[in-house]
Amino acid sequence: MSLPRHFALTPGEPAGIGPDLCLLMARVAQPHALIAVASLEMLAARAQQLGLSITFIPTTPEQKSLQPAPAGALYVWDTPLSAPVKTGCLDAANGPYVLETLTRAAQGCMDGMFAGMITAPVHKGIINEAGIPFSGHTEFLAELTGTAQVVMMLATTGLRVGLVTTHLPLRAVADAVTRERLLQVTRILHKDLQNKFGIAQPRILVCGLNPHAGEGGHLGLEEIEIIEPALDTLRAEGIDLAGPLPADTLFTPKYLDHCDAVLAMYHDQGLPVLKHKGFGAAVNVTLGLPIIRTSVDHGTALDLAGTGRVDIGSLEVALKTAYLMAEAHTP
Amino acid sequence: MSLPRHFALTPGEPAGIGPDLCLLMARVAQPHALIAVASLEMLAARAQQLGLSITFIPTTPEQKSLQPAPAGALYVWDTPLSAPVKTGCLDAANGPYVLETLTRAAQGCMDGMFAGMITAPVHKGIINEAGIPFSGHTEFLAELTGTAQVVMMLATTGLRVGLVTTHLPLRAVADAVTRERLLQVTRILHKDLQNKFGIAQPRILVCGLNPHAGEGGHLGLEEIEIIEPALDTLRAEGIDLAGPLPADTLFTPKYLDHCDAVLAMYHDQGLPVLKHKGFGAAVNVTLGLPIIRTSVDHGTALDLAGTGRVDIGSLEVALKTAYLMAEAHTP
Repeated sequence: MSLPRHFALTPGEPAGIGPDLCLLMARVAQPHALIAVASLEMLAARAQQLGLSITFIPTTPEQKSLQPAPAGALYVWDTPLSAPVKTGCLDAANGPYVLETLTRAAQGCMDGMFAGMITAPVHKGIINEAGIPFSGHTEFLAELTGTAQVVMMLATTGLRVGLVTTHLPLRAVADAVTRERLLQVTRILHKDLQNKFGIAQPRILVCGLNPHAGEGGHLGLEEIEIIEPALDTLRAEGIDLAGPLPADTLFTPKYLDHCDAVLAMYHDQGLPVLKHKGFGAAVNVTLGLPIIRTSVDHGTALDLAGTGRVDIGSLEVALKTAYLMAEAHTP
Repeated sequence: MSLPRHFALTPGEPAGIGPDLCLLMARVAQPHALIAVASLEMLAARAQQLGLSITFIPTTPEQKSLQPAPAGALYVWDTPLSAPVKTGCLDAANGPYVLETLTRAAQGCMDGMFAGMITAPVHKGIINEAGIPFSGHTEFLAELTGTAQVVMMLATTGLRVGLVTTHLPLRAVADAVTRERLLQVTRILHKDLQNKFGIAQPRILVCGLNPHAGEGGHLGLEEIEIIEPALDTLRAEGIDLAGPLPADTLFTPKYLDHCDAVLAMYHDQGLPVLKHKGFGAAVNVTLGLPIIRTSVDHGTALDLAGTGRVDIGSLEVALKTAYLMAEAHTP
């Protein structure tokens, strides 16, 4: 493999638990050089607040062939804050700072300096309050990398769930599940399971939109009119699909034992079971990007920042998944 | 307790796995007298097909103080078929038979002859093909008992999920979540958790309608305009409610460890996680009825009828739940 073995880690919102997670994680040695893209000053202050003794090693992505940092040390690509951080207190002044860390990490991936990026949570509201339209990491990275369609996938041990639609009001979902979107999303899911997860012949289970997958048209016609024809087109392209299946019976061993991913039609159809199963150990992966990006599956938890009472399980899975994806990656 | 200790068991669709489940279950002694409301001839033929040696004891609900049948025996309130049954093959001619078994069981509950009824699956389609409008057990029993509003609840060990809406196309859900329905459904859930499950002060977690429970109005306004005001009204009545909460984080121990039931806004928001958690051991309970009714959580599985390759787990939980509800019942 000729890929770089450095990974970028963005702690995200500086007032939230992202910095805490990165610092707690740094107590354990990683198998690759992991570079936090953040304010060194802020990280040092948070480490002090948490009573953690971490050695910070300033670096830039231009430095080639870094060895993995030892336990208790963390590489930092120092990225200056716009305003001092008070732990737990959002400040719109640091909106541009947060986006700068994401831009550095993503551009570094685009330029081949990072093998992938792992993101801790940002706070959408405060970035918008800073006057910067921002609807989330995923959309920001899609725009930055010039990607028309991305797919949000959450994963935990034994289950991957991709979403056809994501952050839409429920009443807008049915109209958003179009033939075109189904084709695009499923092709991305299939291709990235191959190219980023190393699964030669992925098998995907597709949920219906309606309860009981429409029960033969008695509970909605979208399965018959839109989903089934789209799946037929995709099968003709060689994609191995089952469905549309009733979402309430699909998430059982009979089905899950024989698939590589589930494609849910909308957020609350697929994610409650994923997060129930993978509580504290789920990762959010953005598919369709030209770069590898994984993320924790939780928010900024401002009330817990600086307390040390945080669970690094999701960050650990996000790191591990990014490493595995980089190994499997065939651009 | 002065309640009768006899329970009615309806095997449902005679061509499906319902009769098989009842016969397999009869190999084990039950703690109460359980009376199958079905064709004795059909049950005997199915037992022969399955190679099961079951002693059938004809009875009627008028017979008081039956002792529980011993292992290998089953009480049967013989209810004649309209046409001979071919295992695995639906026949519209037996639609009226299926409804007669339900009517006998439910009327027996209403008349105080049964403490409750447990139902195996029926096939909605074939009953409608028989020219009888039928949208499910739940609706049939609501009409038969003169109940305006019932609530579908599924339960498994450690989790109960009630539904505000049930078998609706997804695009109809948002408009169906009205203030009036929220008030009615939540009151029924609260009252039946008290009166039928013996929980003095039930705590209920309520899902939002939209992803992230609307995220402060960014992903839909129903939480702000409809759900939150309705919950405030219900809290003022003394009902212990939390929510509206994001459905994808609610089904985790942090929340579930401190509640007696979850109220989901629609079918595929609540049931995938319930059936994932309770695979093969979930029960469907109809709340709001003046009688106790539990049911298996699966369908007729025509292809498995007569094979013996069926799992009686859900029927066992349905029986156990009905017994517990009858113990706790305070009319």
